[in-house]
Formats: sequence, structure tokens, C-alpha cells
Amino acid sequence: MAYEEDLKAVNAGLVEVADLVGSAMFDATHSLLNADNDLAQGVIAQDERIDILTAEIEERCFDLISAQQPTDRDLRILIGSLRIAASLERMGDLAAHVAKQARMRFPNPVVPLELQETFEEMGALAQAIVLKTAQVVATKDLALAADIAAHDEDVDRLHRELFRVVLSPTWTHGVETAIDITLLSRYYERYADHAVSVTRRLITIVTGEPYVGVSLTK
Amino acid sequence: MAYEEDLKAVNAGLVEVADLVGSAMFDATHSLLNADNDLAQGVIAQDERIDILTAEIEERCFDLISAQQPTDRDLRILIGSLRIAASLERMGDLAAHVAKQARMRFPNPVVPLELQETFEEMGALAQAIVLKTAQVVATKDLALAADIAAHDEDVDRLHRELFRVVLSPTWTHGVETAIDITLLSRYYERYADHAVSVTRRLITIVTGEPYVGVSLTK
Repeated sequence: MAYEEDLKAVNAGLVEVADLVGSAMFDATHSLLNADNDLAQGVIAQDERIDILTAEIEERCFDLISAQQPTDRDLRILIGSLRIAASLERMGDLAAHVAKQARMRFPNPVVPLELQETFEEMGALAQAIVLKTAQVVATKDLALAADIAAHDEDVDRLHRELFRVVLSPTWTHGVETAIDITLLSRYYERYADHAVSVTRRLITIVTGEPYVGVSLTK
Repeated sequence: MAYEEDLKAVNAGLVEVADLVGSAMFDATHSLLNADNDLAQGVIAQDERIDILTAEIEERCFDLISAQQPTDRDLRILIGSLRIAASLERMGDLAAHVAKQARMRFPNPVVPLELQETFEEMGALAQAIVLKTAQVVATKDLALAADIAAHDEDVDRLHRELFRVVLSPTWTHGVETAIDITLLSRYYERYADHAVSVTRRLITIVTGEPYVGVSLTK
């Protein structure tokens, strides 16, 4: 029974980190769209905390596997949690990358006026996907998986749209901004991919299906 | 003793995959610099095999942890192997990304003449770093860690240099090529990062140091 409590603590840790990487991307998007350097610095500083928390979760998983022979179900939870922690840690990095881009161009805005709305949408999708991912982690209710897949597709669509915009003959903002936009867009796209990956890991934990074959929509 | 053999088999699997992701990046670079579409297709197809092999290693690690109570040392090897497999899998993806870029622009070359040499150097560094990483995995001899760190720094230096080139006022190849170069450069940079990550995992396996604190140079 103590073991059950330990597993709950690992899960609570993952939910906490999912919330943190959600706030990090929310703030990073805000810093990006408002050229808010202090906020950007905050996101970058916070990333260290995310790294420490995920490392602690990893250690705890290791200790739990080591301390006693876990059942196959518990082992699946613990190994899955290790993978989820790694994805969340990377999501924190990506939020920090967005913030660093804002900081690098400060006090100038990174995103041209006509693309602000697209990045607001990217930010909102990142927010929606991470909130639902955190919920799946917290509740193990897989009903949200289809939503998460849909958000991810929306992010991919925006990602492709941004490519089209910076490559169109009417683009007037030069190479540097085109590259900024491409990299930023990729950070959001990878962020959403990792959220999908977390959800797939959750599905393997709940259903026992091997990760390779797991799909979010079926 | 049977368990020792099982651990060796896991390790042999990792070395095999490290060799494959090495060849993948070697071929991807060649396809990129020679607009060789068949070779690019081969790299992309091969990535599926890499995914399957890494999934098999994961399963085997899980089974080994599950089958008997491993010692802390063996558990560290198995959990570390899971992480290494994940990094290698991602390195395969990145090689496939390079190949896809070559395929997308075929029959046109992606890399302008004056940057061919830089990408040859990137490819050679990727090759050197993955060969040494595979060797560290195979032998657990950490003497190569400093070399791997040095190669990674060289890749970072080239990555920054490529940024400077595409952003310089003398750049004449337009936005699309600038974006291609930026993304490609990032794929190599991430590839090298993952090789460093694999080496850090190996250090935690050998020394027991926590991953967060591990440095390749000391």
C-alpha cells in the first residue's frame, strides 16, 4: 500500500511539471508577442527548476524499481513515467527557446504584425494541448487523446502555413525574421509532438500496448 | 550469469543501432551534397528499421527488469540503456530529416556551392562523434568523452557560422535556401547533442553519478 502512495507521488510530480511547462510556454508566448524581456528571463530561469524536478522524478522512479520487485503493471507505470519526465523536460527547453528568441531581439518584436495572430493561435494550441496532456497524466482518462491529436494537427497546419508565408514573394521582412519565424514555429511544433508522445506513453501505461503501435485516434 | 549475457545482448543492440544511425547520417550528408535521391530514400526507409530495433531494445530492458530483481548496478545499466535507445532513435529521425530535405529539393542541390565544404565538415563531425559514441557504448571506456565534447563544440561553432553566413548582407540565395540551411544545421547540431547525451548516460552507468551533474570534460 505504501508503494501505491509512492506511485501517486510520482504521478503528482509529473502533473506538477506538466503544469510548469504549460505556464512556461504560456509566458514565453506572451514575452514573444509583447517583447517582454523580464517575462522571457523568468521563463529561462524557471527551466532550471523544471530540469531539477524531472531529475528528481527520475531518481524516485529508479529508487522505486530498485527498492522492491514491482509488478509488471507498476513497472510499466514507472518506466513510462521516466519517459514522460524526459518529454516534459524537453518541452520546458522548447519554451525556454521561445523565450530566448524574444530576449535576443529585445526591445524589438520578433514577430511581424501580420503574424501575431498566428502565433497567438500557436500559443493557445500549445496551452490547450499541455492542459489536456496534464489532465490525461493526472486522471489516466484517455478520452482526451483524440483532442490532443487534433490540436497537434492544428499546430502542424499552422507550422506549414508559416512556412508558406515566409517563403511567399510578398514577404518583406528579410531573411533574419524569416529564420526567426521558422525556428519559433518549429519549437511549437516539437512542443506539441512531445505532448503527443506523453499521451502515447500514458496509453501504453493504461492499456499495455507497445509504444510503437500506439495511436491517439482509434 | 545468464543475466550477464542478457545485458551484453542489450549492449550489442545499442551498438548496432549506433552504427546504423551513424551510417544514416553519413548517407544523408552524401545525399544532401550530391542531390542523390535514391540514397535519400534509402535513409528515410532505414529509419523505420531503427525505430523497430530501438523498440525491441526497450522491450528487452523492460523484460529484464521485470523478470528478476536486478542489482542497482544492473538496473542502472538497463534504465540507462532505455535512455540511450531513445536518443539513438531520435538521431535516426534527424538523419532522416536531412535526407528528406535533400529529397524535397531534388533534383536541385540544397546547399549552395560556397557552403558545401561547411556541410562536409558537419557530416564528418557527425560521423566522428557517432563513431566515438558507439565505441563508448561498446567498451564503456570513458576516455573518449572529452573528444566527443570537443566534436560537439565544433558542431556548435559551425552552426553559429552558418547563421552568420545566411544572415550576412552578401547572402544571395534567398529566403528559402536560408531556411533550408538553418534547419539542416539545426539537425546536425541536435544530432551531436544527442550523442553527447548518450555519452553522459554512459558516464552515469559507469560512475553512478546523477545525469544532471555529469560533464564530459573533467
